[in-house]
Amino acid sequence: MPIQNQAPRPQEFAAVDLGSNSFHMVIARVVDGAMQIIGRLKQRVHLADGLDENNTLSEEAMERGLSCLSLFAERLQGFEAANVCIVGTHTLRQAQNASEFLQRAEKVIPYPIEIISGNEEARLIFMGVEHTQPERGRKLVIDIGGGSTELVIGEDFEPQLVESRRMGCVSFGQHFFRGGVISRENFKRARMAAVQKLESLAWQYRIHGWSTALGASGTIKAAHEVLVEMGEKDGLITPERLEKLAETVMGFNSFAALSLPGLSDERKAVFVPGLAILCGVFDALGIRELRLSDGALREGVLYEMEGRFRHQDIRIRTAQSLANQYHIDRDQAHRVLETTTLIYQQWEQQNPKLVHPQLTALLKWAAMLHEVGLGINHSGLHRHSAYILQNSDLPGFNQEQQQLMATLVRCHRKAVKLDDLPRFTLFKKKQFLPLIQLLRLGVLLNNQRQATSTPPSLTLKTDDNHWTLRFPHNWFSQNALVLLDLEREQQYWEAVTGWRLKIEEDASPDDVAA
Amino acid sequence: MPIQNQAPRPQEFAAVDLGSNSFHMVIARVVDGAMQIIGRLKQRVHLADGLDENNTLSEEAMERGLSCLSLFAERLQGFEAANVCIVGTHTLRQAQNASEFLQRAEKVIPYPIEIISGNEEARLIFMGVEHTQPERGRKLVIDIGGGSTELVIGEDFEPQLVESRRMGCVSFGQHFFRGGVISRENFKRARMAAVQKLESLAWQYRIHGWSTALGASGTIKAAHEVLVEMGEKDGLITPERLEKLAETVMGFNSFAALSLPGLSDERKAVFVPGLAILCGVFDALGIRELRLSDGALREGVLYEMEGRFRHQDIRIRTAQSLANQYHIDRDQAHRVLETTTLIYQQWEQQNPKLVHPQLTALLKWAAMLHEVGLGINHSGLHRHSAYILQNSDLPGFNQEQQQLMATLVRCHRKAVKLDDLPRFTLFKKKQFLPLIQLLRLGVLLNNQRQATSTPPSLTLKTDDNHWTLRFPHNWFSQNALVLLDLEREQQYWEAVTGWRLKIEEDASPDDVAA
Repeated sequence: MPIQNQAPRPQEFAAVDLGSNSFHMVIARVVDGAMQIIGRLKQRVHLADGLDENNTLSEEAMERGLSCLSLFAERLQGFEAANVCIVGTHTLRQAQNASEFLQRAEKVIPYPIEIISGNEEARLIFMGVEHTQPERGRKLVIDIGGGSTELVIGEDFEPQLVESRRMGCVSFGQHFFRGGVISRENFKRARMAAVQKLESLAWQYRIHGWSTALGASGTIKAAHEVLVEMGEKDGLITPERLEKLAETVMGFNSFAALSLPGLSDERKAVFVPGLAILCGVFDALGIRELRLSDGALREGVLYEMEGRFRHQDIRIRTAQSLANQYHIDRDQAHRVLETTTLIYQQWEQQNPKLVHPQLTALLKWAAMLHEVGLGINHSGLHRHSAYILQNSDLPGFNQEQQQLMATLVRCHRKAVKLDDLPRFTLFKKKQFLPLIQLLRLGVLLNNQRQATSTPPSLTLKTDDNHWTLRFPHNWFSQNALVLLDLEREQQYWEAVTGWRLKIEEDASPDDVAA
Repeated sequence: MPIQNQAPRPQEFAAVDLGSNSFHMVIARVVDGAMQIIGRLKQRVHLADGLDENNTLSEEAMERGLSCLSLFAERLQGFEAANVCIVGTHTLRQAQNASEFLQRAEKVIPYPIEIISGNEEARLIFMGVEHTQPERGRKLVIDIGGGSTELVIGEDFEPQLVESRRMGCVSFGQHFFRGGVISRENFKRARMAAVQKLESLAWQYRIHGWSTALGASGTIKAAHEVLVEMGEKDGLITPERLEKLAETVMGFNSFAALSLPGLSDERKAVFVPGLAILCGVFDALGIRELRLSDGALREGVLYEMEGRFRHQDIRIRTAQSLANQYHIDRDQAHRVLETTTLIYQQWEQQNPKLVHPQLTALLKWAAMLHEVGLGINHSGLHRHSAYILQNSDLPGFNQEQQQLMATLVRCHRKAVKLDDLPRFTLFKKKQFLPLIQLLRLGVLLNNQRQATSTPPSLTLKTDDNHWTLRFPHNWFSQNALVLLDLEREQQYWEAVTGWRLKIEEDASPDDVAA
């Protein structure tokens, strides 16, 4: 009898990073609880080159991106949707026609693309480094990308200072080295501009301090490799070595003429501006020594994905920290969450086709956080809460998730205005509109802010947009105010085409018996 | 030899309250440190009646208001501007053509009118009661006006809960008693609507509690007077007596038919809706007993004015509390304040005609508070700070002052966009635009967030909109980043027609000697 292998087939995960210079994919599997990288793919797409002064992404750049994505899609055949995460960074954040790119990408690769904020990118980079580097203690992590530079200080998987700045080796190349011309003046201007970009954060980083500085990304890797080839065998990047490297580079007239040991042809087009930024970062933060790190954004995405399976959800901490910062009434938040969940579950059973697991989670976060705006003012609360959710750094949420949460909260009370809802690419309107209705009811039923205001036997019946809420027999005789609020809610709904809310009470038990 | 009177002639103060139902003026003087009321004027203007469904104030209503103001103006002849304070409340808050009224009022009465927020109104009412009532301990103060109702709990001159709701005897009359028809159903609907309006605050007020409940305003005074005439000699308003009064009132068919002992003809048009609101307030808060108070909004305004002369400025506490809530970097705030003040004083000397004392104060508050938005996000800081200043309750600031402060803060960094500045009636553009320039420079010069970054010998020369900042000899050789920031600032200013910023360094002492 053959010995049976009891272990299930290990799950495979893929993280894809649509950077401004290159697209990267990394595939890994979990073996004995550890993440094992089993494949990497990289293609230089130089997406940022296709961005014009109006932040419109050119057709050529889109096509380069899409053809790379279709290549990645081949490798991903058979992957479950939950095991693939694709993130877009600076260039897609900037491109005002990013939604067109996302729509066309949908046809090429069957997984959604999440555009993440600069700070979320920075946080994920830090987590990627934290998971892959052996050093402990406080770390400064720097990632100089094609369009943005991320700087994080953190310790023990806990990011403490998180920043992202709009400067990268592609954009600085376009701006300070037009036509690929290298000159002492160009280099100096780029370097000073980098220092200036960091001015508003440098003091805080210097005060906070770090024990190890680590660099990720192609720019830092290239600088490291050239230095090694130039004889610095330990591969450390120091201010003195950077000066030497900068002097060497300034001996060439143009990017095309550049010839350095260890520098790939592909990197030539962005090496000098990247080096100027790196020098600027050293100047601004007073870095004495920087080591190359293995991990970066895609490793961060990978571990985050795997972590969520193990229910170590960073979003819990994010919500917790907002709740603390704005001193929300936690009891009320939990009551609204409970009521909303009670009716959500009934809606979910009746509308299985509209259910979207991400939205389910976002509805719950919105229920928890709908009152964060109270700190600003009770009057206009829904607007203030939405403003905070829209504009804060929310680690663990991508931009669309954040905006969707803000939208739910924006609509949680007062007149329903559906005309100015933002457009989403990850979520369909018919999927999230019912959540607005559910959250409104969840809040309304707790307007009294008392533990007992929702009857547990409350039932919701939904027939498309005609909803019926059914309360226990004679319930309104003790809850006239709730009835009044529900009547006002009916008026709000009537103003929206197709929405109808019906309120019923159970018949008396006597009537039923009769 | 005649005995000379050593005491100076006592200062006279006037407070004017442009209410939705009546305009009131009260004149007082300070004698031996105490405020002595020496005159009162009141005219029923029923301004709120002139507000249509689009919140446009009718020509007739404006004329009623203006003719009352010109009457008041006669009495105020010879008063110094600093001793007169005119505040507008609910109807002027609502009227979208309020600025037209303010412009026309300028020609009739030579003192500025400040439109105050509902919460500022509530706070001033509480202070007015606190100053005029002998009772100590925690007080609930209620004021049912023509367009809004204010509810405050506070103790020892310290408001603790402050709320204002859009319901008043004029607006409820229009809405629930069309054509002045009294019916049991109308009264019940109005009363329930009042309870509903208070739903979101009632729980908090009930939990907080109070030892004395006091009522101000015409509605409560009228109810008190009718009850006294009906035989309740102690004049207390209790739930039982209110029920009796409501029953009596419902015995009449219309406002016109109303005939109650102690009720003036003038009050008839608004008594029943006011009574319905009062009943609703009793229901929502569970009040057992309410006493009529002497003081109200105008007394609050009066004491506040007089208090500012004695330098007990509520605005200091407001700013303090914002600074605490949003954990601003106080050292940096003080540095920016110091630098801004340094250059402001030079500007002030060179432009005495543009100086406006209120604006001077607002510039300083803006310098102190320009970073409150950091709690939301560093990115977009100027927008977030402005949002908070615009939307928070800021006791001691009127609406225009609050908006002006938000405007200064909104413009404190990044590109200068003057096109979408709000319009002000209290302040002229040429008075506050220079303050934007000053605050920007005050912030910029402290971008390094270090104690030493502004040279004390810095000089500012202004020739209309062509400004020159002069630094000590050789100063930029140690402060290259500041120079870079100033160069960027010059670019921002160049984008604004007529603005020019010139940067100079003192010549070397050797040159001067030569």
